[in-house]
Amino acid sequence: MAGAEWGSLEQCLEKHIPPAELREVKRILYGKETRKLDLPSSAFEAASREDFELQGYAFEAAEEQLRRPRIARVGLVQNRTPLPTDAPVAEQVAALHKRIEAIVEVAAACGVNIICFQEAWTMPFAFCTREKLPWTEFAEPAEDGPTTRFCQKLAKKHDMVVVSPILERDGEHGDVLWNTAVVVSNSGAVLGKTRKNHIPRVGDFNESTYYMEGNLGHPVFQTPFGRIAVNICYGRHHPLNWLMYSINGAEIIFNPSATIGALSESLWPIEARNAAIANHCFTCAINRVGLTNASLCSFKAHRDFGYFYGSSYVAAPDGSRTPGLSRNQDGLLVAELNLNLCRQMNDVWNFKMTGRYEMYARELAEAVKPNYSPTILKE
Amino acid sequence: MAGAEWGSLEQCLEKHIPPAELREVKRILYGKETRKLDLPSSAFEAASREDFELQGYAFEAAEEQLRRPRIARVGLVQNRTPLPTDAPVAEQVAALHKRIEAIVEVAAACGVNIICFQEAWTMPFAFCTREKLPWTEFAEPAEDGPTTRFCQKLAKKHDMVVVSPILERDGEHGDVLWNTAVVVSNSGAVLGKTRKNHIPRVGDFNESTYYMEGNLGHPVFQTPFGRIAVNICYGRHHPLNWLMYSINGAEIIFNPSATIGALSESLWPIEARNAAIANHCFTCAINRVGLTNASLCSFKAHRDFGYFYGSSYVAAPDGSRTPGLSRNQDGLLVAELNLNLCRQMNDVWNFKMTGRYEMYARELAEAVKPNYSPTILKE
Repeated sequence: MAGAEWGSLEQCLEKHIPPAELREVKRILYGKETRKLDLPSSAFEAASREDFELQGYAFEAAEEQLRRPRIARVGLVQNRTPLPTDAPVAEQVAALHKRIEAIVEVAAACGVNIICFQEAWTMPFAFCTREKLPWTEFAEPAEDGPTTRFCQKLAKKHDMVVVSPILERDGEHGDVLWNTAVVVSNSGAVLGKTRKNHIPRVGDFNESTYYMEGNLGHPVFQTPFGRIAVNICYGRHHPLNWLMYSINGAEIIFNPSATIGALSESLWPIEARNAAIANHCFTCAINRVGLTNASLCSFKAHRDFGYFYGSSYVAAPDGSRTPGLSRNQDGLLVAELNLNLCRQMNDVWNFKMTGRYEMYARELAEAVKPNYSPTILKE
Repeated sequence: MAGAEWGSLEQCLEKHIPPAELREVKRILYGKETRKLDLPSSAFEAASREDFELQGYAFEAAEEQLRRPRIARVGLVQNRTPLPTDAPVAEQVAALHKRIEAIVEVAAACGVNIICFQEAWTMPFAFCTREKLPWTEFAEPAEDGPTTRFCQKLAKKHDMVVVSPILERDGEHGDVLWNTAVVVSNSGAVLGKTRKNHIPRVGDFNESTYYMEGNLGHPVFQTPFGRIAVNICYGRHHPLNWLMYSINGAEIIFNPSATIGALSESLWPIEARNAAIANHCFTCAINRVGLTNASLCSFKAHRDFGYFYGSSYVAAPDGSRTPGLSRNQDGLLVAELNLNLCRQMNDVWNFKMTGRYEMYARELAEAVKPNYSPTILKE
């Protein structure tokens, strides 16, 4: 298996496949072609100066008579942690704030209305270590921690909704930790928070050492740019999680994640995209880049976790998707969404209408009983 | 958009991409590589003589100490209707029986244990016409119709489980029609039947003109070669449908379908594969090939429905998949599955354990109430 040095699937296809066939390949792999966004050259210059990739695409929808196009630009940020993981905690956080501030400046120049950072973005992804200090020191209060205040400042300055996934310390309720996304309105007010509903217990990533399943259900946030929800990381493997956000009205579901090569790279293009199709909504899949720094772990057996493979992308309710960001570089993906496409695809496919949710509510309620006996036909 | 003449995505990638990079492309697009099956040359010769494509792949699993490998070979059949749609009904059915008999002979030579045909395999896919006669004459009783008797003969002869999706006429209950799959045991006995749970109401494919949503729930069939279920066509868009078959114990879920280019081709590689990942099971996606014959429709507006794009494939619980069969040729895809992989992936990912089905049963039961008010946070 090639490592992180291999740039991206898209680059490879573009390089080798002749144009006429490439069109077919892309149609089958990516669906209806997304238009390249005409982003300002100053934004590309800034991205190049700051050493991150910038890509932009637009998803279009049919014109309607009674609704005007409902256009929202989303920004997806993937990045490595700038400082080594043994630098002082406060310095690591400050360096991340600085890095993100620079990327958000470019996003603002690109007209981004809603930006989302990667899972637990203010820290190295230390949950594979099972060690507590110093990692738990990266936790902050959701409503009035330094990172939320930082995001409020950004949101107000740029008139931008900010989705900020952090490790939350809930000081008012037993000092417990949560894996949380804070949603800050473009006014600068905290709209609310949402918590990771499904916790991995996979190999070294048993994150239940740190936090448990979210207790906030499936909230949706009404913003001036559309209704959004946040399905954090491992929740993308659970179709019911996406479904409940969608039933609650989400038009855009962000999936800030941290996931590594060998385990999940071939699943990555499938899951968020399937959710966009199944729920008539846009999904935004965000993954980290970079090696899991060896200094994260004091246990020798834990030193080689591989690399986060980036490849952040946006998928649309018609099954189309953008190319992915790089597998190894920091990046900002800008996608212009016409949210009218959600209801249009809903009206084409009708999955909510044909979903038979009453039946499934009944069947699931039965299935969770310890003495449930499934229907198995035998000879 | 190129038409049906474009053979397959895989052929194109193989042709243009250099070997070292092709390995990476395949890893990202198809997951862990499937081994090519060493099928008998006589089978390839017969397939060539009968003018259908034959491909075979094996999915492997780790060795276990207490369980021996649980190997099952499945066969997926995709085919066009041999006679024109204005030929007499009985002749069309006889020609299809003959065609399938020849393909099943080859499957038997390849050691197939469970074979599944395409949706409503004994007839042209006429549900887009909205006309009744002669199409409804293709309907048969599930338990003792001529096609079921034909399948019983094949099953017994070849010691093979046969999954036979037909248009069912239920003469004992109001003479209604159903979209049904009959499962015949390798002994020749009818194991039972299952009905399509979700009915498309999409454009010209409003099949509720002919039959309604299935009333048999989510039965699973215990065969000597593993526990199987059948999610017919449009049910693949509904993650809950896959989930309930899986909760009921299915290790292999067949998805016999009939779906056309412009509408769904970019969704096709995503949905059944996502279901294999999300449910720790194998999924077998089967689509027709061939043009929707113009003579199907008396209405001019309905003459051009496009073509069924084949591309049948098998996906595994680790997210890997086989290449697809051709987009335009009849074909038999043989896949050797080690069913131990299901529990192994279950133990890696734990989605059933982390699925929180109690919560979703409650949330869904609330959500279906007409006065349900979703959690939407506003400023």
